[in-house]
Amino acid sequence: MALGAHAPLILINFKTYLEATGKRSVELSRLIENIGKDIGVDVAVAPQFCDIAHVAAQVEIPIFAQHIDPVTPGAATGHVLGDSVKAAGATGTLLNHSERLMLLSNLDRSVKLARELGLVSVVCAGNTDSASAASLLCPDMVAIEPPELIGSGRAVSKEQPGVVTESVKAIRRVNQSIKILCGAGVSSGDDVYAALKLGAQGVLVASALVKSAHPVEVIKDFCNGARRFQEDPR
Amino acid sequence: MALGAHAPLILINFKTYLEATGKRSVELSRLIENIGKDIGVDVAVAPQFCDIAHVAAQVEIPIFAQHIDPVTPGAATGHVLGDSVKAAGATGTLLNHSERLMLLSNLDRSVKLARELGLVSVVCAGNTDSASAASLLCPDMVAIEPPELIGSGRAVSKEQPGVVTESVKAIRRVNQSIKILCGAGVSSGDDVYAALKLGAQGVLVASALVKSAHPVEVIKDFCNGARRFQEDPR
Amino acid sequence: MALGAHAPLILINFKTYLEATGKRSVELSRLIENIGKDIGVDVAVAPQFCDIAHVAAQVEIPIFAQHIDPVTPGAATGHVLGDSVKAAGATGTLLNHSERLMLLSNLDRSVKLARELGLVSVVCAGNTDSASAASLLCPDMVAIEPPELIGSGRAVSKEQPGVVTESVKAIRRVNQSIKILCGAGVSSGDDVYAALKLGAQGVLVASALVKSAHPVEVIKDFCNGARRFQEDPR
Amino acid sequence: MALGAHAPLILINFKTYLEATGKRSVELSRLIENIGKDIGVDVAVAPQFCDIAHVAAQVEIPIFAQHIDPVTPGAATGHVLGDSVKAAGATGTLLNHSERLMLLSNLDRSVKLARELGLVSVVCAGNTDSASAASLLCPDMVAIEPPELIGSGRAVSKEQPGVVTESVKAIRRVNQSIKILCGAGVSSGDDVYAALKLGAQGVLVASALVKSAHPVEVIKDFCNGARRFQEDPR
Repeated sequence: MALGAHAPLILINFKTYLEATGKRSVELSRLIENIGKDIGVDVAVAPQFCDIAHVAAQVEIPIFAQHIDPVTPGAATGHVLGDSVKAAGATGTLLNHSERLMLLSNLDRSVKLARELGLVSVVCAGNTDSASAASLLCPDMVAIEPPELIGSGRAVSKEQPGVVTESVKAIRRVNQSIKILCGAGVSSGDDVYAALKLGAQGVLVASALVKSAHPVEVIKDFCNGARRFQEDPR
Repeated sequence: MALGAHAPLILINFKTYLEATGKRSVELSRLIENIGKDIGVDVAVAPQFCDIAHVAAQVEIPIFAQHIDPVTPGAATGHVLGDSVKAAGATGTLLNHSERLMLLSNLDRSVKLARELGLVSVVCAGNTDSASAASLLCPDMVAIEPPELIGSGRAVSKEQPGVVTESVKAIRRVNQSIKILCGAGVSSGDDVYAALKLGAQGVLVASALVKSAHPVEVIKDFCNGARRFQEDPR
Repeated sequence: MALGAHAPLILINFKTYLEATGKRSVELSRLIENIGKDIGVDVAVAPQFCDIAHVAAQVEIPIFAQHIDPVTPGAATGHVLGDSVKAAGATGTLLNHSERLMLLSNLDRSVKLARELGLVSVVCAGNTDSASAASLLCPDMVAIEPPELIGSGRAVSKEQPGVVTESVKAIRRVNQSIKILCGAGVSSGDDVYAALKLGAQGVLVASALVKSAHPVEVIKDFCNGARRFQEDPR
Repeated sequence: MALGAHAPLILINFKTYLEATGKRSVELSRLIENIGKDIGVDVAVAPQFCDIAHVAAQVEIPIFAQHIDPVTPGAATGHVLGDSVKAAGATGTLLNHSERLMLLSNLDRSVKLARELGLVSVVCAGNTDSASAASLLCPDMVAIEPPELIGSGRAVSKEQPGVVTESVKAIRRVNQSIKILCGAGVSSGDDVYAALKLGAQGVLVASALVKSAHPVEVIKDFCNGARRFQEDPR
């Protein structure tokens, strides 16, 4: 399933949560796919490297690796090769997540490698300057995530709306086509809706969904937030 | 299949070679398993993270991850969680390969995590001092690989036999039970035999096999070298 | 001595060359200062951390640290604190040199710290995309240095003039006020002149001068190249 | 001034505290020297790189760099060259401090470089396994510092005496000649005395002294603790 160029995207990062490791990564991905399809919202998942193959065998929604290293095939023991995540079934990759920061030069290289391999690249950045700098490397998407709000339950789109609008403005000044996600603390459909209203084209979420005792409700809530925006984008 | 405590081990590192990525990692693992079984030698493979699950579904020989990060389940996007490689079917993990060097403190932590998870840990080190230091962290195996010989086609067991005997002596002084592998440049059954004669209990090999135009012949040659030693260990 | 806003700058990186360590860093800085003054060209030096204080006591030209870490005063053993290089007499700092690459997020932080401390920041980058991205972090200067030409004796301004003009164009599109240096392989006054003609406002040089058997001649040659441009800028 | 082979050592890490940056590093070093001399206890300081030269010009006690990189003279912009800290007047260097952790292979290299340059090496480690592993690299000293106690004001010698005795035993099993320091949370002369009683030959201290409103009293207290042990070692 392709990513809609304009439709809002809910990208769910499984991190290294046990709740989304091994078989549970497959089950969670299936849930997410079904609810996304039902409500009519683009959803995607970013499972751990070892789980990509199993998830890819069971769902059709886009699958993102959580990182690829700036290496080409060869002698790079222990590194994550773009060709490998692609062979396993990934559609794209996160890059420079605040828990997996990259050298500027390596980030540039990994974005270019992703492009050559046809992998959709999503570069994360923690503030406006870094996000607009990252957008000049021409990834497909950039995700703004103030690190202090990650996992906080306080959504950037509510706590720091200025960061989102300012980032959107700064990014658009230098890159008109890039898809802009926002993340960090997104915990409800209202947070998703707020993010889209502020000019983001999607959200990057994790703990609020993956670690929830009621993930089905959370996914529905997130998707309904996006749906509400789709029906009345302005 | 368990690792024989005393039998020589041939551990094959797939690195990020395209020749051992995706489906080809499964095919190569099957070849290796069959030949190992035929000749009666312990063999094991270390595929890329994304390939562990597929390989594990098809072979019974031990499978090693190429690295695990010193992280426990939680918020560690893009990292390699021990629980995840285990859930995918890995039996153990390489650590501190010269292409994926680790902080001393992280290495210590990853060895302990592997132990808690029941993963066999193989710590690589480039010289005698580092190898004996590493053996005090109490991994299951230590692999001596002078970095300048890796991928060179000139085997450490032939080019620098002194490094092997000296390392074996230094390691045994502080750790009597650890399994000692030697690697770097191992290209033939004679190299394997020489390594075992010098006091190693196995070899860590990569390019000479994985990148060979005739991998079957190379695997047979390696296994026959080990077999020859098994039949006449002294 | 302040840096001329418009005058071409020759910034000499002492790296960790023995020829510019300890007392020799002071002597070399004096030579550079005298020749720069004689010929009427802005020169600056980037000695090692331990040499900044001694150099600062003997010359009045601007002194750059080779790096500062993204740390504020506190518990950061072994790191390079901006306040410390400033107290020692530095006017500015290099950042993200290809031999000391930085995480994008840390680079952003170090640029901001430099600004708060009144240190002139020079961010190095290896290609057009990275250089224009870096310029969005708003350092005072950006230095384009294709890593494959560093120390090669083949000047970027002669070997890859397209990289320089293209980078200048890409940087100017997003940042009009930043000073643009170019480096890598700059070995003669002609190379300096060529760089300035291509739109750079200065050069970053190292081995060709520091490791020369005749540094006086090299400095003079470099300064004369800049001088020639100053007298006929177009 | 040489380090006594057997006398207890109080090594004071200035970290990147403003209270010990620039001129204040020189003043603090002078205080420490005078009090150490008065009370008759070996003291040493570890100022920031930029301050080594000024401190060395004013005191005769041993001066340690806080880190050296595993690089030899050459093209290593922004790195800390052993030759450079030595030329500035350092007698030795800390390595692998918990705030500046090193790759095992780099640590091995930096210890060897220090030895070649005649610099006294002090390797820090956070637990017993890492400390005994580090001692096999044959540095001159090893410093045990449980990271969770660093800067806590709760001394390892009081809070976790078992860690100290166990580490001393494990280290002595593999290295009889190395000098063993202990650190983390050492805040009083009693803590110093306790550490020496537990088998350490010295302490590594930082915040309790450097950030104190009354550093003179703290230094005196520390030195008196060591003195008390010297007069009645068992």
